[in-house]
Amino acid sequence: MAVRAAVAGASGYAGGEVLRLLLAHPEVEIGALTGNSNAGQHLGALQPHLFPLADRVLQETTTEVLAGHDVVFLALPHGQSAAVAEQLGPDVLVVDMGADFRLKDAADWETFYGSPHAGTWPYGLPELPGGRAALEGSKRIAVPGCYPTAVSLALVPAYAAGLVESEAVIVASSGTSGAGKAAKPHLLGSEVMGNMSPYGVGGGHRHTPEMIQNFSAAAGERVSVSFTPTLAPMPRGILATCSAKAKPGVTADQVRAAYEKAYGDEPFVNVLPEGQWPQTAAVYGSNAAQIQVAYDAAAGRVIVISAIDNLTKGTAGGAVQSMNIALGLDETTGLSTIGVAP
Amino acid sequence: MAVRAAVAGASGYAGGEVLRLLLAHPEVEIGALTGNSNAGQHLGALQPHLFPLADRVLQETTTEVLAGHDVVFLALPHGQSAAVAEQLGPDVLVVDMGADFRLKDAADWETFYGSPHAGTWPYGLPELPGGRAALEGSKRIAVPGCYPTAVSLALVPAYAAGLVESEAVIVASSGTSGAGKAAKPHLLGSEVMGNMSPYGVGGGHRHTPEMIQNFSAAAGERVSVSFTPTLAPMPRGILATCSAKAKPGVTADQVRAAYEKAYGDEPFVNVLPEGQWPQTAAVYGSNAAQIQVAYDAAAGRVIVISAIDNLTKGTAGGAVQSMNIALGLDETTGLSTIGVAP
Amino acid sequence: MAVRAAVAGASGYAGGEVLRLLLAHPEVEIGALTGNSNAGQHLGALQPHLFPLADRVLQETTTEVLAGHDVVFLALPHGQSAAVAEQLGPDVLVVDMGADFRLKDAADWETFYGSPHAGTWPYGLPELPGGRAALEGSKRIAVPGCYPTAVSLALVPAYAAGLVESEAVIVASSGTSGAGKAAKPHLLGSEVMGNMSPYGVGGGHRHTPEMIQNFSAAAGERVSVSFTPTLAPMPRGILATCSAKAKPGVTADQVRAAYEKAYGDEPFVNVLPEGQWPQTAAVYGSNAAQIQVAYDAAAGRVIVISAIDNLTKGTAGGAVQSMNIALGLDETTGLSTIGVAP
Amino acid sequence: MAVRAAVAGASGYAGGEVLRLLLAHPEVEIGALTGNSNAGQHLGALQPHLFPLADRVLQETTTEVLAGHDVVFLALPHGQSAAVAEQLGPDVLVVDMGADFRLKDAADWETFYGSPHAGTWPYGLPELPGGRAALEGSKRIAVPGCYPTAVSLALVPAYAAGLVESEAVIVASSGTSGAGKAAKPHLLGSEVMGNMSPYGVGGGHRHTPEMIQNFSAAAGERVSVSFTPTLAPMPRGILATCSAKAKPGVTADQVRAAYEKAYGDEPFVNVLPEGQWPQTAAVYGSNAAQIQVAYDAAAGRVIVISAIDNLTKGTAGGAVQSMNIALGLDETTGLSTIGVAP
Repeated sequence: MAVRAAVAGASGYAGGEVLRLLLAHPEVEIGALTGNSNAGQHLGALQPHLFPLADRVLQETTTEVLAGHDVVFLALPHGQSAAVAEQLGPDVLVVDMGADFRLKDAADWETFYGSPHAGTWPYGLPELPGGRAALEGSKRIAVPGCYPTAVSLALVPAYAAGLVESEAVIVASSGTSGAGKAAKPHLLGSEVMGNMSPYGVGGGHRHTPEMIQNFSAAAGERVSVSFTPTLAPMPRGILATCSAKAKPGVTADQVRAAYEKAYGDEPFVNVLPEGQWPQTAAVYGSNAAQIQVAYDAAAGRVIVISAIDNLTKGTAGGAVQSMNIALGLDETTGLSTIGVAP
Repeated sequence: MAVRAAVAGASGYAGGEVLRLLLAHPEVEIGALTGNSNAGQHLGALQPHLFPLADRVLQETTTEVLAGHDVVFLALPHGQSAAVAEQLGPDVLVVDMGADFRLKDAADWETFYGSPHAGTWPYGLPELPGGRAALEGSKRIAVPGCYPTAVSLALVPAYAAGLVESEAVIVASSGTSGAGKAAKPHLLGSEVMGNMSPYGVGGGHRHTPEMIQNFSAAAGERVSVSFTPTLAPMPRGILATCSAKAKPGVTADQVRAAYEKAYGDEPFVNVLPEGQWPQTAAVYGSNAAQIQVAYDAAAGRVIVISAIDNLTKGTAGGAVQSMNIALGLDETTGLSTIGVAP
Repeated sequence: MAVRAAVAGASGYAGGEVLRLLLAHPEVEIGALTGNSNAGQHLGALQPHLFPLADRVLQETTTEVLAGHDVVFLALPHGQSAAVAEQLGPDVLVVDMGADFRLKDAADWETFYGSPHAGTWPYGLPELPGGRAALEGSKRIAVPGCYPTAVSLALVPAYAAGLVESEAVIVASSGTSGAGKAAKPHLLGSEVMGNMSPYGVGGGHRHTPEMIQNFSAAAGERVSVSFTPTLAPMPRGILATCSAKAKPGVTADQVRAAYEKAYGDEPFVNVLPEGQWPQTAAVYGSNAAQIQVAYDAAAGRVIVISAIDNLTKGTAGGAVQSMNIALGLDETTGLSTIGVAP
Repeated sequence: MAVRAAVAGASGYAGGEVLRLLLAHPEVEIGALTGNSNAGQHLGALQPHLFPLADRVLQETTTEVLAGHDVVFLALPHGQSAAVAEQLGPDVLVVDMGADFRLKDAADWETFYGSPHAGTWPYGLPELPGGRAALEGSKRIAVPGCYPTAVSLALVPAYAAGLVESEAVIVASSGTSGAGKAAKPHLLGSEVMGNMSPYGVGGGHRHTPEMIQNFSAAAGERVSVSFTPTLAPMPRGILATCSAKAKPGVTADQVRAAYEKAYGDEPFVNVLPEGQWPQTAAVYGSNAAQIQVAYDAAAGRVIVISAIDNLTKGTAGGAVQSMNIALGLDETTGLSTIGVAP
């Protein structure tokens, strides 16, 4: 019997991507689609790439519309998910692709979002230590942020293995879809093409506490993070360059071994052969992450680079992967490790 | 029992794309992969997006390597396919993604390619009138050129319905992957980004006689084609703007009706609702074609615009679709109409 | 004594480009800068590339602010220029980069813009037959649309020389800056990168009557135009592919000779050597136009391709060039034929 | 009397850019242009954006051809400049845009380039402490690498003011022109568009010792550098994110003050107002650098971000600026701080 899934926020980029993936998912039947300002419109006009759903009409995001599904994906502005989830009740699997339930520390939430903390849900990054167990059978999933996905896949193994010091420096580039579909002048094609620009510099980006949370849990001590995101002239993809000082005596071989061990059995994490570097184009539209590690002896730092598709592994693919685990399906069902390139 | 498929020329763009599609094809098992200058290398280094095949090693393109498969896809420079096909024998399905067997007229071939004509194979565009019948059970398939695919889908219905005069004017933009993976200075990223440029202007492009062939067959008379291709700053996609003078008395409704009739049952051709226009992003990585028609009363012309992915519907997707028909499989097996967007 | 110039609409793309050019103009001193919704802001935040003007503050667009200048450039939404010009009086040179005064035919205006016709000003395309004479000493200039600039430079010589029939077919690609700086979802970087899409197909684009006006004047008879604009994934540039049937007996040599004659003395129009094709990258940020002609004997058509920068020669450069003529300065003052490439 | 300048390597990107700038330089007359594999070709076919030089023919790179000029710009593969300079003699100003004479430490050179060290010339970054004095009257100039220019402008003031610890972490993105015009598969437009990828990770990039040299000189102690370059999908521009731990007690105000003091009088370095961030588009084609600083109290790091055009300030603009100083001209002659945007 098919899993019936609804998507709230189907006209945006996260909503469109989860629909793209669910259309290819053999166990899922797509139910209600909602969108606030676009309610009443055909999906074909809003998401013309989702040809099989072109004639579907967006409904209002209400409990009535979303009720009666096995799974509800929420692609809503932050602050709205708690109320929806409560109304849907405890038996519906609610997968929140927004930020509301990612952080464990209420003070962190309030500092970065300026509103009361809604709570903490099981975290949808199965590749973390203990990640899968937290998701099995769960009826609530907090999908990680796109940057924290890329960055945690990159550095958590080093922290878990005790290889690096507790100060991480991260610079990551994201494609523009990470900034969403709301029309803002600085996101116009004329502005972003041919342009690299940073934002949220100096610790202000809301994904920073999520990285600290993941690193600290792996390290068993508080890890500080200097995170600089940059906007890159491409629609999709995150390339994260992550580094930390190596602990005394750590060798390049130890570093590499830690990553091969951590990810040797992971279906979606691809530790590249030596000499080959991650690139966002290779994971375009796929749920795979590419990882490569280097040990810079002169600078005494471990550098780990990861590439993901921010909308797939970084959002909707991670959501579907986590849903699969929560529902007891094979984790890879409906998901691909094959990118669309060139 | 699985269909075993080999790919000759697996390191290029057409070869990579057919592998991307075959990996998702439930009836196909991927056999030998060959590449001339890259023989001996791992596919992972050459096509890093094809993660499941990363450990496969390219072999030389020889009859021995290609023998013993049910289907052999040829992604070779033109002039090489005939010899390979002959050696493989008549029982192997040979799908040529090159130009060698597309043209019926030997003189046209010699004019545009400057070499003897190898022959004519059944033409892999099922949506043409009689197109499917020509492919059923065939052991040889000539996959159309990418531009002729886009352009024929756009104008053949108008010619078949007798709506337009016998002079077509076509301007089409292609992503750079259409020019292949051989490193040439004018194809460098530094040169193509931020740049639109034409080439083969004035009738010189080798895809012109193929368009004339398709239009003339539909019209029942010789159709002339003015074709200008332009290179667009994007990796994939063709947007073709095709027009011809309307025959006297033709109305906009008649034009629209002809396209809805021609493509109403086609699984991969999407005649868009009025007011919506084709865009290459919507078919990125998909086997779908988007079509829209307009009748410009002031200029007296029928304008038809089509968008395809040059590597998917325009090459490898068309190849797999035609293979499906030739093998008696459901035509849509392993192919998607869902684009990767944004 | 310096020419004092004001710019109304200085926060948009046309306004920014005219300021970029005026900063390099040795005879011009930049006076008031206005912008409606952005009044009160520093230009540095809105146009960060115009470093020397970073500390200038935008004022409201009022007669008081714009008064007292020798030249006023208007980069306003259409419909607003007439009132401003009237208030400035007949002694100020008013250069309208909007559409209001381009068309001679009031009925055309009303059909395409749906409002009363404001009038007709001398047309700022000096390269047209008689174009310079119309501008000398004028106190009013209607700067042509960007597409009509590219397209008229391409086909007017063929019409003026009587070489082609009176039906033109034009397909042109524009960079996204042609659509302006107002934030609209379909102009987001996520939407336009990797994407080619048409708009205004079938005769609806407002630049069509302007092309007809220019061609018809050159041909001495009514010329019909089928015009299809497409949006290309680049910030700047127009590539126009323009064609018409050759009149009986016309030869390739005649065509080429007509263009070399028409443009042999033009400082900004570059008829390329045979074998070389226009490309938008070569004119990036420059006031030059590249032109190439071809005669397709098989199709019986003359094809002319032009490349310009839509913001420079297509808008602000054409405006400054016309201002130079109107003021009796050397036409090329402050303007460059050198592109920024790669 | 005009300065006569020759350019060796005029067909590449650095050579083309220095010609673009010299064409606008009021004191320079362009003399011989050379290019090895392209000798005999018209520049118009190789650098179509340099319209005023279209008819110039490239000559062989020989002493005879280069002799008789006041200034010779060398845009040659590394290892070739020493011999050319020696033959030109001590009275000609030789400006080397290659790497040969940038490093002071012969061992560093040999480690990173694997060949004997040619020597050290005055370093063409006037904004460094003592930078101008080293260039005045000099007959030899080693133009810095593009990354070291961006990175040194970013961090040298912090080191010179003693604000940060001696371990720097740098991640910088470059447009593809930084990789040159030689056709390589991974630089094809099809590969780079939509793609971010790192290279030279872990200390291997040849620009690393140059950064160490500049930082160490400013700090008065050996500074280590972890440098990761990434290739961005744009033709031009470098965005460098540079950070180091703040020394104990350092405040955000101290950091900002140090940068305002260091660059307050610099004509080409633009420390942005607080709240505004550098972007490569704003310096496209200009010789300006944009700088912004942040102090991340939680991570205890000073983060400095710089944006330059890799071909202008990062190569040819820096070369012309240094030439101006060496020749006793106003440093800004022929150079612009205005970018081409959008």
